[in-house]
Amino acid sequence: MSRGTLYIVSAPSGAGKSSLINALLERNPTYAMKVSVSHTTRDPRPGEQDGIHYHFVPKTHFEALIEKNEFLEHAEVFGNYYGTSRVWIEENLNKGIDIFLDIDWQGARQIRQQMPDAKSIFILPPSAAELERRLNARGQDSDAVIAGRMSKAKSETSHYNEYDYLIVNDDFDVALMDFKAILRAERLKQDKQAAKYSNMLTELLSE
Amino acid sequence: MSRGTLYIVSAPSGAGKSSLINALLERNPTYAMKVSVSHTTRDPRPGEQDGIHYHFVPKTHFEALIEKNEFLEHAEVFGNYYGTSRVWIEENLNKGIDIFLDIDWQGARQIRQQMPDAKSIFILPPSAAELERRLNARGQDSDAVIAGRMSKAKSETSHYNEYDYLIVNDDFDVALMDFKAILRAERLKQDKQAAKYSNMLTELLSE
Repeated sequence: MSRGTLYIVSAPSGAGKSSLINALLERNPTYAMKVSVSHTTRDPRPGEQDGIHYHFVPKTHFEALIEKNEFLEHAEVFGNYYGTSRVWIEENLNKGIDIFLDIDWQGARQIRQQMPDAKSIFILPPSAAELERRLNARGQDSDAVIAGRMSKAKSETSHYNEYDYLIVNDDFDVALMDFKAILRAERLKQDKQAAKYSNMLTELLSE
Repeated sequence: MSRGTLYIVSAPSGAGKSSLINALLERNPTYAMKVSVSHTTRDPRPGEQDGIHYHFVPKTHFEALIEKNEFLEHAEVFGNYYGTSRVWIEENLNKGIDIFLDIDWQGARQIRQQMPDAKSIFILPPSAAELERRLNARGQDSDAVIAGRMSKAKSETSHYNEYDYLIVNDDFDVALMDFKAILRAERLKQDKQAAKYSNMLTELLSE
């Protein structure tokens, strides 16, 4: 069996990242894959479930995990900690499961340093006009609010060239097929295939 | 427009390499792709066409091309030269066309040195028994002839770990989908996409 691949997935808001990842998980019966669930010290919001949306842990517990170097990356936002557990990811990769890590460019940089085998994918909207339309989908926001979102989206987008792959999400189904092609091709890499077919290769090469 | 990719494709006889490449060229209307046509100094055999099966050239012409360093690789076999033209490949890659180079592991090594951006794919049969069956498909050959073919196939196969991707050709249609996934994923690499979508990225990132 070959080890799974860690996929770092980043995008500006409005690019459709979450919809693509959800569609992959729902419509892909062939490969084992999971989304990484972050740890956080903030309180659950209504409807959020422990272990699904976040691993909700007390601050002392989180700080103990930092001490033990158990996070691939962590950050403090408005007094709450958020982090990605190295142990959970390693366990799943070793079971041959692909893991998606939905994270911004700053987190992506930290992960790449710790997990050099990770593959990173950046998802782009098809145009500035379409991005603006998606960021104002309800049509109820002020120009200033939309401009703020656009500015944040541009800032995230400016890091596109730090990623291994770019997907342009114009037609959703095409973008989904692009994503699937990346997952399929990565599983055809020599080291993954050699691990998967080690018995067959031994037999083929025996005298 | 983004530059095409040079694909080095190797396999032992009986793995189905030619059938896969032919199917890709026939059934893929989306991407521009061509098979590299080698130069040779040997005489055309009945049915072979100049420019399709080989570029047939006189020995003096071939030697002049060697002098001008116009071959990515070349070899002499039974007194005849065979070689891969750098100029033709570069011209096509620059037009955004993917090129398949059907070559053995020794040629593959030479090409990798000259074209470090080339991607290499090795195609494997699903088992030794199936390989032997395919190498004796007509059932008319002596055990010694089949053993010789098997030995040559094993020798080629022993270099599988020098390639970027491995495809196991058990079910032909699955292997064809694997091949297509590699081509699609390689076109989603950041540098290719950034070249393809340069105008869109400029617009997205402008103030």
